Amino acid sequence: MLTAAYTGNATIDIAEAEPTPPAPGQVQLEVAYVGLCGTDLHILHGSMDARVQTPLVFGHEMSGTIASVGDGVEGWAPGDRVTVMPLAWDGTCPACLAGNQHICQNLDFIGIDSPGALQARWNVPADTLVALPADIAMDAAALVEPVAVAVHDVRRSELTPGDRVVVIGGGPIGVLIATVARAFGAEVAVIELDPARRAQIGALGFEALDPRETDQVAWVEQWTGGAGADVVFEVSGAAAAVLGATDLAKVRGTIVVVAIHPTPREINLQRVFWRELRILGARVYQRTDFERAVELIADGTIPTSVLITKVVPLAETRAAFDDLEGGRAMKVLVDVQAGQPAEEAAA
Amino acid sequence: MLTAAYTGNATIDIAEAEPTPPAPGQVQLEVAYVGLCGTDLHILHGSMDARVQTPLVFGHEMSGTIASVGDGVEGWAPGDRVTVMPLAWDGTCPACLAGNQHICQNLDFIGIDSPGALQARWNVPADTLVALPADIAMDAAALVEPVAVAVHDVRRSELTPGDRVVVIGGGPIGVLIATVARAFGAEVAVIELDPARRAQIGALGFEALDPRETDQVAWVEQWTGGAGADVVFEVSGAAAAVLGATDLAKVRGTIVVVAIHPTPREINLQRVFWRELRILGARVYQRTDFERAVELIADGTIPTSVLITKVVPLAETRAAFDDLEGGRAMKVLVDVQAGQPAEEAAA
Repeated sequence: MLTAAYTGNATIDIAEAEPTPPAPGQVQLEVAYVGLCGTDLHILHGSMDARVQTPLVFGHEMSGTIASVGDGVEGWAPGDRVTVMPLAWDGTCPACLAGNQHICQNLDFIGIDSPGALQARWNVPADTLVALPADIAMDAAALVEPVAVAVHDVRRSELTPGDRVVVIGGGPIGVLIATVARAFGAEVAVIELDPARRAQIGALGFEALDPRETDQVAWVEQWTGGAGADVVFEVSGAAAAVLGATDLAKVRGTIVVVAIHPTPREINLQRVFWRELRILGARVYQRTDFERAVELIADGTIPTSVLITKVVPLAETRAAFDDLEGGRAMKVLVDVQAGQPAEEAAA
Repeated sequence: MLTAAYTGNATIDIAEAEPTPPAPGQVQLEVAYVGLCGTDLHILHGSMDARVQTPLVFGHEMSGTIASVGDGVEGWAPGDRVTVMPLAWDGTCPACLAGNQHICQNLDFIGIDSPGALQARWNVPADTLVALPADIAMDAAALVEPVAVAVHDVRRSELTPGDRVVVIGGGPIGVLIATVARAFGAEVAVIELDPARRAQIGALGFEALDPRETDQVAWVEQWTGGAGADVVFEVSGAAAAVLGATDLAKVRGTIVVVAIHPTPREINLQRVFWRELRILGARVYQRTDFERAVELIADGTIPTSVLITKVVPLAETRAAFDDLEGGRAMKVLVDVQAGQPAEEAAA
């Protein structure tokens, strides 16, 4: 089978490999689609070289079908359509013991810390599987993981129906957060610099603001009757956005830090104090987020066809990252079976 | 009567003034003791000149006795021993309408935005009064306001009994937060640079750490079995403390921003994200915090005699600030009636 692996130096190697049978407790998946995301880009750029072991077959947003099950696996059978919640926790650290297994202090994020989905056959622990209903398309199902991120972020914010919400940054995760927040009953405005993305966001029915043309603080004040936003999601990763976010939130409002900020950022703590703001970190997801994400895709809430800009065969993974980076794509999927050697596809 | 007013330029003017009768809805207090605090120091240094109107009779931590009541005041009588919760809200702004009157968007903080307690007779709205029990000493009662700050900070943190708590900064508010957190069932360590303060903190039964001698992260790790602190209170106001605070908190731990940070501070948002931390602003207090503070002083929980370093007459207010600033005092009280002209004291 063909695999796509990060080998260091911004290089992706498309290589032949032999599938191995699933170990006890594992299943072997025939991977259908894999979504490429910002974290994968960070890996490709070497920003995570201290963490990843090369060659790394990466990819952690996927859909697939069970090809075979290992010893001791119950409740799953070949042919089951599934996605994977790519987290493996130790179950023994203080975070796990306190019920926060999803951010275990020794978390194995599958696809980063261990091999991921950019391979025709992928063995994963059976307890990472999430069932897909029959009426969900396999390409759309590759979005379950990023939708689960958005569900987790929105749940973490504790927003309530009727809340006015600002999303800073209208990339794939920002649009998903906006969509999930709206599905949870919020009114949503998105702040985004890129005009093409703003047009897409507007077409999805959200307010789309250009912060260079609109005074965002005045706009939010007016929109909220002088109160400020109930919740602000910081999804841009930009230092200026972090510094400005505190001016958008109401008294006792919430700011959720979704983006990755590799270096410390300046925050207006005077405003945090003055308005008794709440800043929350939000990372990955819990099983309930995955299950909710499957529902939101299955019922058509998530505009998957707008979000999936392009589908490429495995061999074109490297070029797909260039599209992603150049802002020419919201979400690129890799069709993992396309272009696989014939004997593998039939295996 | 004599009053102490900030007149700009780091100057305090001790001046004669005529008491005025209380307006309808007000009471006239015979002020007993006034505590000087960090905010008063900020005023004296001119840091709040854009906000205060000079001359400003300041002071907002106090105890006193009702001298007379204005028209329409019910439930209070001359001779009642009281303290004042020095907040006046408009009741109509979005924050007030949402139930957060204590941080009203147009808050009048009495003693900063309007005249305060450093005068022999002080007129205040009757609805700011908080009753003092008979068994509380009047000097100790001047600490109700800062204790209410600490109660508010601890309540805001939502700590639960058994939690391990780190307080960064062992000045008066830090020591009060440590004391209140312990009274609420927490185990508390205090990080403080000054050796004299550390000795006092240790004598009160708290762990007192010198961050230049102890690796605070390793110490907290060890103390918490590798988990990290449940709650961290940032009371120091120092940039380095803010940057380091995120390394002390457990997964889903809480950092409460108590200190005033006049300029934006760098925060390790990577850590906020990674551990799903929660950063909370906490400002002033609500009535329940004042009532709890009165109880904690009355029942001896608050070590008022350790905290009150010095009592000076009104005429020495300026010198008292120098002691405060030089770190030679935890809490200095002004005995407002001492040194008043005889006819006034008898009035």
